[in-house]
Amino acid sequence: MGLIVQKFGGSSVANAERVMNVADIVTSTYKEGNDVVVVVSAQGDTTDDLIAKAEEINPGASKREMDMLLTAGEQISASLLAMAIEKLGYPVVSLLGWQAGFLTSSAYSSARIKTLRPERIRKELDKKHIVVVTGFQGVNRYNDMTTLGRGGSDTSAVAIAAVMRADRCQIFTDVEGVYTADPRKVPGARKLDAITYDEMLELATLGAQVLNNRSVEMAKKYGVELEVISSLTRAKGTIVKEDCKMEKMLISGVAKDDKVARFSIIGVPDRPGLAFKIFSKLGAKNVNVDIILQSIGRNGTKDISFTVAKEHMQTTLDILTPYVEQLGATSLVYDDQVAKVSIVGAGMESHPGVAAQMFEALFESNINIRMISTSEIKISVLIDIADADRAVTAIHSKFFTPDVVGQ
Amino acid sequence: MGLIVQKFGGSSVANAERVMNVADIVTSTYKEGNDVVVVVSAQGDTTDDLIAKAEEINPGASKREMDMLLTAGEQISASLLAMAIEKLGYPVVSLLGWQAGFLTSSAYSSARIKTLRPERIRKELDKKHIVVVTGFQGVNRYNDMTTLGRGGSDTSAVAIAAVMRADRCQIFTDVEGVYTADPRKVPGARKLDAITYDEMLELATLGAQVLNNRSVEMAKKYGVELEVISSLTRAKGTIVKEDCKMEKMLISGVAKDDKVARFSIIGVPDRPGLAFKIFSKLGAKNVNVDIILQSIGRNGTKDISFTVAKEHMQTTLDILTPYVEQLGATSLVYDDQVAKVSIVGAGMESHPGVAAQMFEALFESNINIRMISTSEIKISVLIDIADADRAVTAIHSKFFTPDVVGQ
Repeated sequence: MGLIVQKFGGSSVANAERVMNVADIVTSTYKEGNDVVVVVSAQGDTTDDLIAKAEEINPGASKREMDMLLTAGEQISASLLAMAIEKLGYPVVSLLGWQAGFLTSSAYSSARIKTLRPERIRKELDKKHIVVVTGFQGVNRYNDMTTLGRGGSDTSAVAIAAVMRADRCQIFTDVEGVYTADPRKVPGARKLDAITYDEMLELATLGAQVLNNRSVEMAKKYGVELEVISSLTRAKGTIVKEDCKMEKMLISGVAKDDKVARFSIIGVPDRPGLAFKIFSKLGAKNVNVDIILQSIGRNGTKDISFTVAKEHMQTTLDILTPYVEQLGATSLVYDDQVAKVSIVGAGMESHPGVAAQMFEALFESNINIRMISTSEIKISVLIDIADADRAVTAIHSKFFTPDVVGQ
Repeated sequence: MGLIVQKFGGSSVANAERVMNVADIVTSTYKEGNDVVVVVSAQGDTTDDLIAKAEEINPGASKREMDMLLTAGEQISASLLAMAIEKLGYPVVSLLGWQAGFLTSSAYSSARIKTLRPERIRKELDKKHIVVVTGFQGVNRYNDMTTLGRGGSDTSAVAIAAVMRADRCQIFTDVEGVYTADPRKVPGARKLDAITYDEMLELATLGAQVLNNRSVEMAKKYGVELEVISSLTRAKGTIVKEDCKMEKMLISGVAKDDKVARFSIIGVPDRPGLAFKIFSKLGAKNVNVDIILQSIGRNGTKDISFTVAKEHMQTTLDILTPYVEQLGATSLVYDDQVAKVSIVGAGMESHPGVAAQMFEALFESNINIRMISTSEIKISVLIDIADADRAVTAIHSKFFTPDVVGQ
């Protein structure tokens, strides 16, 4: 039929039984007459176990040696999966990143794919082999092992699909697809049949991490059609592609991110360039600022508020605490008991009432909005962390009550 | 000073503490002004753990995929050791077999080194790096991972020492060197300062496995001076080399092998070629026959007795049971309650009384000899397994009582 790339994450190959299950999926696809390239991550906790071993010996180990260590993880899972496929009686070969032709930059631990030369993969497919490739890894120009960073296996799979013009790239996970909200928390959450690349990117940055962002960006760039699908139920998943005309929904999902902190610098003198200086100081330390709100204070001063990821809270404090006085500002306050709730949807571009509907849902639930941020396909609000789950449910039922869907 | 190759086995790098100990040995050698190449095996039980994982999925997995799996073991230990060396503040780089230039045959699981191209190792040494190389592995002409078989790390180390003309190749183990007998069993056993390659080879085949045989053969061929030394005590070990003039001992060691079985085919017709047929039948199934004894029986028949490794006992039975009748022989008997006790020593070539002294020791201990086999530098006897430890002690004290040594 065609060429299918299938990617399986660590939980999908966590133990012998799961590996056999994956072998069954792969060989079923092969039996249907497809060429199949399989990309695997390291088994379950292997990567974390290896990191723990390294930490015990040298917490300051070089990234080069860390990559040398970690690439052993996918080597183990790839060979085990190949053995499982052999057990089912199918021809198979496992290939390491470098054998599969992944040439990367030298940025150990977060290397970028520079070229993918798929000659060996092609040769094995010509021999009618199922090809199992280790995700997450490659070699640099010095022939040293590199890794693409966490979630890099998605990127490996999309790269193969892009270069080899695969008919589809299936990303198998332990969820059944992309949902309108977290199905464990929001009763009415439902699986989407399709979603655009941009919506998927917004959802990923909002904490609904189903696909690695770099992989979605690459899929968008090369027009690789993705399918997010469960390795356990094997039910039809969610297709990620450029245009999703079949569904005319206002929004495609509601997401919550409670790993944020809010900072306010009170009484900043109203002089040009001060905001720039503050944010460039943070940027220099790799602190990403998300929602920004500037309000006029008293006596020619203003208040600047913004959010950062909770993990950057201490760095932000360290940078700003001495700087506030220097700026001539009054004080610095912060709050980590906040959450960001967002709705995402390509449909909202042409429907101006979406924000109002979202705010109405929050108002009806008596939830106070502290900050607002919007983009073309996203609206985010910052609220108290205690209200977050209630907010997601209220917003979700506003948009996804059966009679409202498709309005 | 020079170039030192140091090899550390699995038990020497079994955990974080041991890895740090190895890093200490390596960097001490480096500090003395030497170039150092380190060869490591997989940590402790890693190889066995990986084999267990494979068995659970597919006990009949291909050797190609097994090699892909197992080579991850040294990759982990090599990177961890490099991290430990980094921790001590020394420049280091770890290299996989293929990066270090090991090109092998395609006989997965028991590949032979075809070429070693040490350009990368040399380049790293020129940069004053300590170079850590994964033992036991290489790549074949298709760029697929291969392993050299168990004990192959010794061979990797000797190959590097041979090709790079190292000044010494130190094999670190958990014993302090080569002993005149098993020091855990024989009270007077003492460490040898030096031993010849041939003596080492005979001792290895006799069950006193300190060094892998292939590595000793390679060391002999290329004149690589080996040192067997403890990674724990770091005391002066045993030197293995061509000529050991400093010690004029009659024998260099007493070894016991109780993993043998004895077979006798009784009443074989005395026709030419029958013995050959029997042994070629066994050889075809990879059963190695060791001591052979042929004795004249009654009525123009003979009895043929021989020993095999205990692990081949069942195969031998399966082959010979139906064959005995076909041969016209009377019966087949076997006994696995036997042990082979041997003495080895280059000195015995020029001292004809050695065998007599050995038999005298056994006689004085009232131990019955059932078979005898001799080579230029070895005498082996087959005795009851129950007598084995007593025999080793008796023979050892015969040759190694202080006033006898050096006679």
